[in-house]
Amino acid sequence: MIRVGIYGATGYTGIELAKIFARHPEVEIKFATSDSYVGKKLSEAFPCHFDIPLVAHDAAPLDRIDVAFLALPHGASADYGKRVLDAGASVIDLSADFRLHDAAAYKKWYGLDHHAPELLPQAVYGLPELHRDQIKKTKLLANPGCYPTSVILGLAPIWRANATNDTIIVDSKSGVSGAGRKATDIVHFVQVNENLSPYNIGRVHRHLSEMEQELKLVNPKASLIFSPHLLPVTRGILSTMYVRLTDGWDENRLRQLYAETYCNEPFVRILPSGQFATLTHSNYTNYCTISIHHVADVNQVIICASIDNLIKGASGQAVQNMNLMFGISETTGLL
Amino acid sequence: MIRVGIYGATGYTGIELAKIFARHPEVEIKFATSDSYVGKKLSEAFPCHFDIPLVAHDAAPLDRIDVAFLALPHGASADYGKRVLDAGASVIDLSADFRLHDAAAYKKWYGLDHHAPELLPQAVYGLPELHRDQIKKTKLLANPGCYPTSVILGLAPIWRANATNDTIIVDSKSGVSGAGRKATDIVHFVQVNENLSPYNIGRVHRHLSEMEQELKLVNPKASLIFSPHLLPVTRGILSTMYVRLTDGWDENRLRQLYAETYCNEPFVRILPSGQFATLTHSNYTNYCTISIHHVADVNQVIICASIDNLIKGASGQAVQNMNLMFGISETTGLL
Amino acid sequence: MIRVGIYGATGYTGIELAKIFARHPEVEIKFATSDSYVGKKLSEAFPCHFDIPLVAHDAAPLDRIDVAFLALPHGASADYGKRVLDAGASVIDLSADFRLHDAAAYKKWYGLDHHAPELLPQAVYGLPELHRDQIKKTKLLANPGCYPTSVILGLAPIWRANATNDTIIVDSKSGVSGAGRKATDIVHFVQVNENLSPYNIGRVHRHLSEMEQELKLVNPKASLIFSPHLLPVTRGILSTMYVRLTDGWDENRLRQLYAETYCNEPFVRILPSGQFATLTHSNYTNYCTISIHHVADVNQVIICASIDNLIKGASGQAVQNMNLMFGISETTGLL
Amino acid sequence: MIRVGIYGATGYTGIELAKIFARHPEVEIKFATSDSYVGKKLSEAFPCHFDIPLVAHDAAPLDRIDVAFLALPHGASADYGKRVLDAGASVIDLSADFRLHDAAAYKKWYGLDHHAPELLPQAVYGLPELHRDQIKKTKLLANPGCYPTSVILGLAPIWRANATNDTIIVDSKSGVSGAGRKATDIVHFVQVNENLSPYNIGRVHRHLSEMEQELKLVNPKASLIFSPHLLPVTRGILSTMYVRLTDGWDENRLRQLYAETYCNEPFVRILPSGQFATLTHSNYTNYCTISIHHVADVNQVIICASIDNLIKGASGQAVQNMNLMFGISETTGLL
Repeated sequence: MIRVGIYGATGYTGIELAKIFARHPEVEIKFATSDSYVGKKLSEAFPCHFDIPLVAHDAAPLDRIDVAFLALPHGASADYGKRVLDAGASVIDLSADFRLHDAAAYKKWYGLDHHAPELLPQAVYGLPELHRDQIKKTKLLANPGCYPTSVILGLAPIWRANATNDTIIVDSKSGVSGAGRKATDIVHFVQVNENLSPYNIGRVHRHLSEMEQELKLVNPKASLIFSPHLLPVTRGILSTMYVRLTDGWDENRLRQLYAETYCNEPFVRILPSGQFATLTHSNYTNYCTISIHHVADVNQVIICASIDNLIKGASGQAVQNMNLMFGISETTGLL
Repeated sequence: MIRVGIYGATGYTGIELAKIFARHPEVEIKFATSDSYVGKKLSEAFPCHFDIPLVAHDAAPLDRIDVAFLALPHGASADYGKRVLDAGASVIDLSADFRLHDAAAYKKWYGLDHHAPELLPQAVYGLPELHRDQIKKTKLLANPGCYPTSVILGLAPIWRANATNDTIIVDSKSGVSGAGRKATDIVHFVQVNENLSPYNIGRVHRHLSEMEQELKLVNPKASLIFSPHLLPVTRGILSTMYVRLTDGWDENRLRQLYAETYCNEPFVRILPSGQFATLTHSNYTNYCTISIHHVADVNQVIICASIDNLIKGASGQAVQNMNLMFGISETTGLL
Repeated sequence: MIRVGIYGATGYTGIELAKIFARHPEVEIKFATSDSYVGKKLSEAFPCHFDIPLVAHDAAPLDRIDVAFLALPHGASADYGKRVLDAGASVIDLSADFRLHDAAAYKKWYGLDHHAPELLPQAVYGLPELHRDQIKKTKLLANPGCYPTSVILGLAPIWRANATNDTIIVDSKSGVSGAGRKATDIVHFVQVNENLSPYNIGRVHRHLSEMEQELKLVNPKASLIFSPHLLPVTRGILSTMYVRLTDGWDENRLRQLYAETYCNEPFVRILPSGQFATLTHSNYTNYCTISIHHVADVNQVIICASIDNLIKGASGQAVQNMNLMFGISETTGLL
Repeated sequence: MIRVGIYGATGYTGIELAKIFARHPEVEIKFATSDSYVGKKLSEAFPCHFDIPLVAHDAAPLDRIDVAFLALPHGASADYGKRVLDAGASVIDLSADFRLHDAAAYKKWYGLDHHAPELLPQAVYGLPELHRDQIKKTKLLANPGCYPTSVILGLAPIWRANATNDTIIVDSKSGVSGAGRKATDIVHFVQVNENLSPYNIGRVHRHLSEMEQELKLVNPKASLIFSPHLLPVTRGILSTMYVRLTDGWDENRLRQLYAETYCNEPFVRILPSGQFATLTHSNYTNYCTISIHHVADVNQVIICASIDNLIKGASGQAVQNMNLMFGISETTGLL
């Protein structure tokens, strides 16, 4: 059994971890922490049936776990991550703290001095489809952001194949759970319901840093415009991506490229011609669903990629990474 | 032209007033106030096209208006109501401050000493279908609560006709705008969406005081169980009401009773047999839609009544009252 | 391994079965049938990742299964149920065909002559909390309706304890998946969204027959008014039930009654005082969540009970029943 | 008074016309037609309070009207349009039948031989912001499609100013009422709710023909990729448009361009810097709301434009056109 601890169990990703662990045959939860609900049970902090007791972050018994999942705000994650590593356990961090390899970039995008820059070299960006081998060996895993998971999986084959030289347009739409559990004007039901809101569009959203870091690994010319929109749904991200192709590409060759890239991936699904990736394809699963639409007369391709932002975009991918790090079957608990 | 001022223009009922006034041929807005948006325009406080400047409550030019609409929290309303009356203008209060005739009842239900108990005797409960004549003559109008509007209109004929002797079950369902614009956990999109939540059920919701006050006027034996539920919609209330009948009632006699009671009412609609009142019947209108369903073998009747909580349940009814108070056609601006 | 077949795999309950089986360690799907998608895969009939081939009902290889799940319309289920039993396998029927013990009652409520009345005596009504022992022994299981599951679990303790002598008011609200996958005006998005619609209220909905049959087993005086409403959500049922109590009951005694009744039930959860059962408590789980609210001054109690209509109200409960029928742990695949 | 007739009054655009006319002081409805509800009232065909009698299309008294609104399927509209013109009244057609100037293009995109090609030369494309003068003089008005209204208003200033030479990416999202009232799998609540679906993306949606026709009038090089998505909302369209700029443009110059283009338009609103156009800005109004977002480091601009698809995208714009055609104030009935 893998002995796990959850930091920040009462946020949406923390609760999702509890749900996944309830079905995971190899995991035992040793502790769950909270800021606001110390002394209560998870079922008192959220309408669910998990009577897991909640302790203060600082009361977590680090000697009893093999791995800690950090579902904490950025900044806080780096601190606790350090502490967990010092205690000898592994870290799977769902915040942004260890995603960017460069502390200066972190400061630029997140406005904070990094709390543990010395750990950055050992952190692995936990997208199994790109970095499976490093993931298996690391003790410090940076779980990718939700938008970047959909975008990087959707675009990596294109860039790898040098199929574009141009700025790519990424028009993304996300459910509200991506904005977190804190009550703000932005997530008021009346504000979101029957509405659709673009925000931080262009080249200003923090997740852009992560996308470009990863995509430049496969192709240094990678450049994006990224436009997130807030959808009136609880879960799910759909990214619609517009790529101007270099010469010589058609629908068949594109389909072959994606099929080859992902044929052995348990959680990436390429839809057959004529089908469109939707939120429903991926919600409540750990899949990234991708559809490919060549626009012949302007030689562009539209890639649609959907994920569940709380599963493949957060807690499911975190468990997929844990499975890899602990040498058990990658899909355990995730089907 | 009727010169109006709006106190608290940036809440949902304030914005709804602005929308109605934009189509009301006899109204001129002289000021609109706000706490948080002083110096801005209404269009900066809410995504709309009304560039009405917002002033502080205390900067409102009371000498320039004939009537003030108070869309303020209870407590605050009584204070400003007094001030407006002293300045010689009329008051239409959308809060609960002048609804209960009894300051002790107000204290019991709202937990506050009433700020202007001396004004209570002149306040009129502004349900035109029950109190039209007094409304025409008052300068201090207490606009009814949203739930009570649906319940009192749905039940008044029954009680007037002495058709029940028993506690009535009222199962009400409301959209989220009824909870106000303040960001709280309760109105977080993820909390409300794909959910339905009962709250304050039994005999504990504040609106019960108002319902029983008004219904006891028509029948002193009136007693209710009132169970509100929060619906995942922006607007609308549906109250489903279960009434054990005295002998001698059948569907036809009940239909005749309702038809006679409401035949001259411009904003109450009784649906024909076989139709069910839904939110859609009333949303974005000033109507209360009522359907009648006799359950013969247990001699009960189910009354369904729907309103738009922001219109007939608040701002529309307030304008209907203004029309009556200022002697113009009751339906002006409300069709 | 339990070898199963699914008849009617492309409806909502069929798809939900496929989802549950994907996580059930003791089940092997041997066939899945469809009317409209013969020759295709389940993933072509619904946006999901199950590439299960779909065969015609009549092409199902009955010799290869231990149990068939019938997710077929009533009428058709009886025919196929007979065929499956004749082939020696067990039947778990999700339609209404074997729920009523009396063919005449079936005819009255469903308007059909029963196709296999000779099988009715051996059919067991599959509510484990009431009939666990018979379920373990049967080969013909009638899986309960969705509304009845919430209502019977919510009221059985009350009736067993003779705590009421009166007609109970059941005000139920259901998500749209309960209406099935067929495109009709009633389930058009624009018709349902931002709306709430009562329908078949009083004593006319078919599920009333099932509720009263089961409740009369525990108390012959049981009588109900049942008012379903269509909610703008995909899943979930909340039933709010109003019970006039006999003397001597208070909140504590009621809580004790429910605690005793359900203390060993893996899928019934009684909420602590002050909490309200909501859809979110039960959605995407096999739980029935119950909250208890005594209204002291009129001596009534309000019981709120929620389930996921596709899980505890259909496919989850069907699997719970299968687990019992095949002697494996009751919760397998359902956590 | 303008005497109007409505063909196809029970579809969403027909009902919206009835709502607008109820507030329009210069209009008298002389007839309303329907296929399926002949002999009934509009309130029986849709949950509303308009007791307008419905007659068969062929029973419409053409001698009693000044103008007919055709809310009919394409194909049918051309037939009735001809008939109305022959009877001497004006035509405002909400279908696609008279939008394309070229019968061959119509055949290509709609798969039909045009039923009245001889009328095409006199038809005016009814976008007041582009063709106000011709609209004032015509008797045959082709009311624009919903998507094209948002896209053409959003892009016309850019093309007029020759600010781009490149294919523009239009990523549009629409509410479900745009798909019409017919019950199909696509508009089933469970299919749409909590989902987002791209469809007909690239260069295949019919509305592309209309957009390119109009935009080529201002700039013959206009070319688009157009990707519609179905949103889980009842109303509203948001188009997010990505434009690669020629040299010399910055945010200020772009803002000036849009301000100059639309400064006298009663129903186009340019948001100030830092605000984003959302559905809520335009829903339940006749406005098109536009926001401008320059992406300096790649010299592109993102234009967001929202409308209510049933008002500015259909019935509201139709009434705006009627107001122009009959010489009354353009905003009458639309505020």
